[in-house]
Amino acid sequence: MRKDEDPDGVPLTDEELDALDAHWRAANYLSVGQIYLMDNPLLRKPLEPEHIKPRLLGHWGTSPGLNLVHTHLNRVIRRHGLDALCVWGPGHGGPAVLANAWLEGSYSETYPDVSRDEEGMARLFRQFSFPGGVPSHVAPETPGSIHEGGELGYSLSHAYGAALDNPDLLVACVIGDGEAETGPLAASWHSDKFLDPVHDGAVLPILHLNGYKIANPTVLARLPEAELDELLRGYGHDPLHVTGDDPRQVHRAMAAAMDTAVDRIRRIQRQARTGTDAGTGTGTSAGADTGSTGAGAGAGAGGPDGRPRWPVIVLRTPKGWTGPAEVDGLPVEGTWRSHQVPLSAVREDPAHREQLEAWLRSYRPDELFDERGGPRERVLACVPDGERRLGATRHANGGLLLRELPLPPLEHFAVAVDRPGGARHEPTGVLGGLLEAVMAATADRRDFRLVGPDETASNRLQAVYGASGKAWQEPLLDTDEHLDRHGRVMEILSEHTCQGWLEGYLLTGRHGLFSCYEAFVHIVDSMVNQHIKWLRTARTLPWRAPIASLNYLLTSHVWRQDHNGFSHQDPGFVDHVLNKSPEVVRVYLPPDANTLLTVADHALRSRDQVNVIVAGKQPCFDWLSLDDARAHCARGAGVWEWAGTEDGTREPDVVLACAGDVPTEEVLAAAALLRRHLPGLAVRVVNVVDMTRLMPHEEHPHGMTDGEYDALFTRDKPVIFAYHGYPWLVHRLAYRRAGHPNLHVRGYKEVGTTTTPFDMVVRNDLDRYRLVMDVIDRVPGLAVRAVGVRQAMADARVRHHDWIRAHGSDMPEVTDWTWAG
Amino acid sequence: MRKDEDPDGVPLTDEELDALDAHWRAANYLSVGQIYLMDNPLLRKPLEPEHIKPRLLGHWGTSPGLNLVHTHLNRVIRRHGLDALCVWGPGHGGPAVLANAWLEGSYSETYPDVSRDEEGMARLFRQFSFPGGVPSHVAPETPGSIHEGGELGYSLSHAYGAALDNPDLLVACVIGDGEAETGPLAASWHSDKFLDPVHDGAVLPILHLNGYKIANPTVLARLPEAELDELLRGYGHDPLHVTGDDPRQVHRAMAAAMDTAVDRIRRIQRQARTGTDAGTGTGTSAGADTGSTGAGAGAGAGGPDGRPRWPVIVLRTPKGWTGPAEVDGLPVEGTWRSHQVPLSAVREDPAHREQLEAWLRSYRPDELFDERGGPRERVLACVPDGERRLGATRHANGGLLLRELPLPPLEHFAVAVDRPGGARHEPTGVLGGLLEAVMAATADRRDFRLVGPDETASNRLQAVYGASGKAWQEPLLDTDEHLDRHGRVMEILSEHTCQGWLEGYLLTGRHGLFSCYEAFVHIVDSMVNQHIKWLRTARTLPWRAPIASLNYLLTSHVWRQDHNGFSHQDPGFVDHVLNKSPEVVRVYLPPDANTLLTVADHALRSRDQVNVIVAGKQPCFDWLSLDDARAHCARGAGVWEWAGTEDGTREPDVVLACAGDVPTEEVLAAAALLRRHLPGLAVRVVNVVDMTRLMPHEEHPHGMTDGEYDALFTRDKPVIFAYHGYPWLVHRLAYRRAGHPNLHVRGYKEVGTTTTPFDMVVRNDLDRYRLVMDVIDRVPGLAVRAVGVRQAMADARVRHHDWIRAHGSDMPEVTDWTWAG
Repeated sequence: MRKDEDPDGVPLTDEELDALDAHWRAANYLSVGQIYLMDNPLLRKPLEPEHIKPRLLGHWGTSPGLNLVHTHLNRVIRRHGLDALCVWGPGHGGPAVLANAWLEGSYSETYPDVSRDEEGMARLFRQFSFPGGVPSHVAPETPGSIHEGGELGYSLSHAYGAALDNPDLLVACVIGDGEAETGPLAASWHSDKFLDPVHDGAVLPILHLNGYKIANPTVLARLPEAELDELLRGYGHDPLHVTGDDPRQVHRAMAAAMDTAVDRIRRIQRQARTGTDAGTGTGTSAGADTGSTGAGAGAGAGGPDGRPRWPVIVLRTPKGWTGPAEVDGLPVEGTWRSHQVPLSAVREDPAHREQLEAWLRSYRPDELFDERGGPRERVLACVPDGERRLGATRHANGGLLLRELPLPPLEHFAVAVDRPGGARHEPTGVLGGLLEAVMAATADRRDFRLVGPDETASNRLQAVYGASGKAWQEPLLDTDEHLDRHGRVMEILSEHTCQGWLEGYLLTGRHGLFSCYEAFVHIVDSMVNQHIKWLRTARTLPWRAPIASLNYLLTSHVWRQDHNGFSHQDPGFVDHVLNKSPEVVRVYLPPDANTLLTVADHALRSRDQVNVIVAGKQPCFDWLSLDDARAHCARGAGVWEWAGTEDGTREPDVVLACAGDVPTEEVLAAAALLRRHLPGLAVRVVNVVDMTRLMPHEEHPHGMTDGEYDALFTRDKPVIFAYHGYPWLVHRLAYRRAGHPNLHVRGYKEVGTTTTPFDMVVRNDLDRYRLVMDVIDRVPGLAVRAVGVRQAMADARVRHHDWIRAHGSDMPEVTDWTWAG
Repeated sequence: MRKDEDPDGVPLTDEELDALDAHWRAANYLSVGQIYLMDNPLLRKPLEPEHIKPRLLGHWGTSPGLNLVHTHLNRVIRRHGLDALCVWGPGHGGPAVLANAWLEGSYSETYPDVSRDEEGMARLFRQFSFPGGVPSHVAPETPGSIHEGGELGYSLSHAYGAALDNPDLLVACVIGDGEAETGPLAASWHSDKFLDPVHDGAVLPILHLNGYKIANPTVLARLPEAELDELLRGYGHDPLHVTGDDPRQVHRAMAAAMDTAVDRIRRIQRQARTGTDAGTGTGTSAGADTGSTGAGAGAGAGGPDGRPRWPVIVLRTPKGWTGPAEVDGLPVEGTWRSHQVPLSAVREDPAHREQLEAWLRSYRPDELFDERGGPRERVLACVPDGERRLGATRHANGGLLLRELPLPPLEHFAVAVDRPGGARHEPTGVLGGLLEAVMAATADRRDFRLVGPDETASNRLQAVYGASGKAWQEPLLDTDEHLDRHGRVMEILSEHTCQGWLEGYLLTGRHGLFSCYEAFVHIVDSMVNQHIKWLRTARTLPWRAPIASLNYLLTSHVWRQDHNGFSHQDPGFVDHVLNKSPEVVRVYLPPDANTLLTVADHALRSRDQVNVIVAGKQPCFDWLSLDDARAHCARGAGVWEWAGTEDGTREPDVVLACAGDVPTEEVLAAAALLRRHLPGLAVRVVNVVDMTRLMPHEEHPHGMTDGEYDALFTRDKPVIFAYHGYPWLVHRLAYRRAGHPNLHVRGYKEVGTTTTPFDMVVRNDLDRYRLVMDVIDRVPGLAVRAVGVRQAMADARVRHHDWIRAHGSDMPEVTDWTWAG
């Protein structure tokens, strides 16, 4: 132990230790009970088959470790008066977290019918992983949780997200050694290079090495300890070890490690926040049972570069600890066989049942629970009060802490539009102005962050640097720009880490936006799945307050990756999210700068949603004034009278529909060509901003009624729809509409390469010339009358082909084209 | 240097160094030329605007580093007679790899019109990132490549995949410090715990720290060197450092580091393969300019646990090295500003053009290229011969090395089926028998691997352990099962790493299968995107030989994750891949054990495809005998006459269609209910195995003609389609069919939780009772006639609801149901 830390870190008294152990035993008992029992919760009768659940579900293996961590977090929260939150990476160990919430009372406060007595205990047991009951994992239903532990990989980035801009919060994060093998988790260790010890809270990773996954040993648990320490120090951490299988020894070591970790964290924070308390001493062992490996250049509160070396606790205890040592002659405790349900035939096999009863009684329930079935006083001695309880912290119900985002009037940023197509702007560049203002307005509150994988400037949002630099705790060089020890723009070349940070930040009651290349947002497909599932469930829980939406700005999109080529061309994220819960998902394709402003403003004000906004960063025609943009976005889809031939007196011969900035330009150009070459043709132009408007209103809250749809698209006229992404998505959304047989969609059909921007639309048959040909092919009677026009369009495509091969760039008739409405 | 390594590792002579430098300068010259020039390739005329490309595209920043690595790989391949392959992680530095291929002649051998002379050089320059030319990244079109460097994250897992079962191959892998921040890359460092030094080749990671990404410094480049070394040693590696910006010093250090690395690798392999040459000495510096940090317990050929500590080279050179130091008064070389095109206004701005010309001339092209424009002899002094050239290795065109997989007769594994539904088997368990046989048949050839994230046994494929254990190089314990130093089953809890290993293995000419939980395969959505894009392009290149398909077995699927709950329920991967190139993508939903065998056999024989097979691991009715399964799978979709009321005399009143094992059982049960309750109704049952059969045949090579479709589904009868996944997918595939307005699809509609298996289908309206109600609602005239039947079905759903809440398991009438056809 360093001389100046943990001055009162005296060893536990036997009494304290007994109380901690009682709490741990109680939590273990309740964990086993949830997996097995549907009646007789306190074993006041001999255990009979009818007391056993017919289907035994749940994960025992990780539960005793989680219970140990929870018990000792209770102690340290109470002892040091901490404001704490815990992210349970092995959240499939749901029984443990539920057991602790019930013990501390937060569970019964949230769900009064699961009272803290025998009847409530019976309900706690029975409901677990039971039809109509609660999930087997930590889930939105679990008080104190912000993290579902099923998919694995995101715990540490969630923990960092929760700690950002919460200077007084300690976020413990239990990382299972299985989860530690995943890519997202492996990347997120470097989050410490972005954590500001002044304005952010602390993350205390607790790497739990119980040695096994479902069926294999884990990579990290089998490393020689010296090699593991090198890895953790290489991640920037200072490891504290707690190892053992003797409960009393482990309790002592864990208490000492927790005290040491909290002291070191406080010292780092004190030093950073006051500039005093320089702590570069060499670490030594932190308590008799805690083998701190503080040696080496990187150990201690500060490394050679001044960056703090935050503690990490390495907890090495047996998988399924305190469970059956052997079952049917095979070792179980301390092996992968304890991963789920160690005794599988309890209902049928009296020997298994006897073994279960002995296992349950080994925790001595009579010592733990009183006559009424509630926990005895000694069991609760370590439990903190009120909102300091892990199941009751408001940080895990972030909506309670959420404040309205101060959004300035859009008039400050909107581009002036005298007439449609009169000028061009970079839509994301214009949005950058709004984001800068939001950054500035939250400079003191610090509840807004912008995340992205090294692409903020590439995506033209660099205006934000006027209000906040980029978070960075590593050394600074003279040539650096916009790096900032206290910055709230976060850039790391890991979409997973960006997503995890933002989710953690939002779930704890703050606001943010993720800007990403459109193609590479697929990297987080699975993460957004889980977040949407979380939100969908959370919306059904009255006690969960709404949180700010997860907002994506997808740019550098498929049509403008001509330079990076095929690998960068993928518009399918929209398809992916539209498979998910319609209550949660919104998809917007603003066609210009002012519509992007409007949509972004709406998204930033919304709650409990995932908003996907696809917008370009290249100069793009300004079609709508701010007022028109507002009106258009409020409708989500509408006729652009000025772009077609609408005069209110006749039905259109054809509808040209568009969604997305590039398709909109092509449709407008096609409309102009039609006006010139086929002046008698009645053309309606429809622009769709909100893709979910196309869905039936029974399927999505934004869906149009059939009447609304037919009024826009007609029931019987040809509709040529130029869509930003995969064309069959539009069919999927609109297949129930009366006019569907007349709907012809153009979009990206996976024809990509390195070429010019206009060649991308030509190759995918989305170009203006092709759209005019489509009109001629589909409007009855036009094929013959317009044969010359059709040939002229086909000739233009050939001209394009020859031009780009000769010049390497697009021909002037498409680059210098302007709309003359 | 250790005493016993690199015995002839004398420093480079000046002449050798000059030759290496000439090669490097030539590659740099050619890299710059590709980015900028469309004419005047050898600068034999003063540089004029018309020589400059109109659009300047490409990535200069990483190119000089890649050129340095390539030059020194050439040297070490030639010197040590190596069989080598290189994976270029920063593959966006396409100009570098193309330059080297052109220099060594492999480019012109592949593309004779790009000859190794002035005319060919002009073509090389012009075609780069030019319409109709070649991509700006390393791509399938690039000789010697197996890895597209656009998305970033997969280089190291690809390299390991290539090295597996290639004992004589050295796979160098350049990892950019940007890429190193990604999750997949971070996870893949631990691949060394799975690399068998006896049967596998070696991977030599070259971590290239040029300091910057697009717009930011990198996390690893700014770490103190001691901390970076801890990280790399924590990953199990022994780092060798090469640092500098003086070319001659860097050449000397790089040559020494390469020699040392090759010697250490050979020593590790010798030791493992012969049991001799124990090498546990402490490493010291490897050459004057190479600061090996061999200290510490983990250094050297073997660590304390006997596992080899493979070398890693840390190459630290400036980004955009040898490029413009400053442009317009801002520093460029050595900063992020050199990431893409350092001089942007070369065509318009004479000062920029002058700077470009000086930059190009700084490489002294006259010394490098002869009168004809070919490289001079000295430039090529380091280049190896024939297939040892990195652009000519057959390992990068794996189809050339591919052998037919020895697949045993399916009769050995098929289940006997006397009558449909007479028994149940676990389909994946049956498949396990086939995989075991394939493992056994390839025991000597070692060209088949099974990968999965800790789920092989969970997915019921454990029979394979009879023929091969699981690869594992960490310590072994007595309690371990099936771990094997030489195993070919690969399990790590990282879907990314599994996918990367398998891709690398397949691309180098071997076979494999990836088994994964259905929901979590979304983790690799983006990786499969890139692999499909690769295959689609490779199929268009006559010189690329077909490789074995990437085969997915998705199991533990949406309908049987009732115990893990909502987070584990997602059938959307099928939707994801069906957005991709139809030449490449196949989706199969075998309904029972024998169809799974048949489909797997077909997939394992196929080439250049991505086969997605979704199948259950729970006991499932056997519907088809092996012969029937073969006939059915050959058609891809067909009528099951025995399941409906077909007698060849009358048209059906309704078609019950199904795809997937659980929907098939529900449809068969519904058909049985209809037979019992509505005996007069003519019911046709159609089962779909191959989902792409539903697509129009113009859109997919497996797509049915309209005639075929109509013959199966009718043009005008109600079709109730029970589909495994999201129901709207079926609409997306079938919207052009005449009968589409009558198509009613049931499937997973994102209603999930922890419950019972049958409750999952009830909650999503896919259950047998609901399907019967759908029939009654949709067959004209039935609503009135069958009102009682409809009520009975609704009652059964209520009975189900009450039963599961009382008993926690499904009611006997669905679990004990059997088909009596």
